[in-house]
Amino acid sequence: MAITTGEKLPHSELLKLGAEGTEKVDLSALSGKIAIFGVPGAFTPGCSQAHMPSFIRTADQFRAKGVAGIYCVTVNDPFVTKAWAKDTGADQAGIEVLADADGAYTKALGLNFDAAAAGLYGRTKRYAMLVTDGVVDVLELEVSPGVCELSAGENLLKSL
Amino acid sequence: MAITTGEKLPHSELLKLGAEGTEKVDLSALSGKIAIFGVPGAFTPGCSQAHMPSFIRTADQFRAKGVAGIYCVTVNDPFVTKAWAKDTGADQAGIEVLADADGAYTKALGLNFDAAAAGLYGRTKRYAMLVTDGVVDVLELEVSPGVCELSAGENLLKSL
Repeated sequence: MAITTGEKLPHSELLKLGAEGTEKVDLSALSGKIAIFGVPGAFTPGCSQAHMPSFIRTADQFRAKGVAGIYCVTVNDPFVTKAWAKDTGADQAGIEVLADADGAYTKALGLNFDAAAAGLYGRTKRYAMLVTDGVVDVLELEVSPGVCELSAGENLLKSL
Repeated sequence: MAITTGEKLPHSELLKLGAEGTEKVDLSALSGKIAIFGVPGAFTPGCSQAHMPSFIRTADQFRAKGVAGIYCVTVNDPFVTKAWAKDTGADQAGIEVLADADGAYTKALGLNFDAAAAGLYGRTKRYAMLVTDGVVDVLELEVSPGVCELSAGENLLKSL
């Protein structure tokens, strides 16, 4: 069962690569209002050319409306997410890209899928959500992970 | 059991991203002499700053000694390997980076390992090999995947 609005996020041990090595981030433990979007894969066309840019364009508007942090989650390792965050400009926009390295968080959300022909296994369906104190307020989930419409930054912004 | 010299490579369905989408490559079916090196992960420091550069430096010398192709194998998806091949200069050096997207080939070789703290699961130990008509002539396997000495291009070249 996929997570839905009103439910608490599962505990997560998402990874990011800092100066001191890998650090763990638990999105469910963050207080205040945050925006999260999930993408099928770093360096894939839909994620690099559509989804990420939509949040880079709108990051300042989310912050102006009281969103304390913007997080992108993908089933990749933290070396890949770091390179991708730099390559896309997510870093400069203040968007934190977190690695669900073993895919456990994505499975706990019930949002995993495989696209074997493209070499993608246990990846995150494309979604965006607003979360307050770990509880999902708004969830925009694409029916097809190849599409980026409901889950785009501009559309999520309308719910604020 | 890890593969050893004199043995045939297992069948592989490694992926690369071409103009027409993903293509499958079976290293065990290639005729002639080829060089293969395995790396724990695209965009990791050891692979990007040591292992790949060692084969970029020596690619022409391998070809001069009759090596028909130089292949790098990593447990990443083909979108990540494509970005990494461009980023490191592997493309320009004529080194083909192949994605063992589900890790099946690496497991069949018996060369998989986990480094959970770094977010790496089912990855390839660091190795280099010379293969003729699908049979392993030379195998240089690092005891620690963090080290790049035996498996470096310059060392493998000595066996030719």
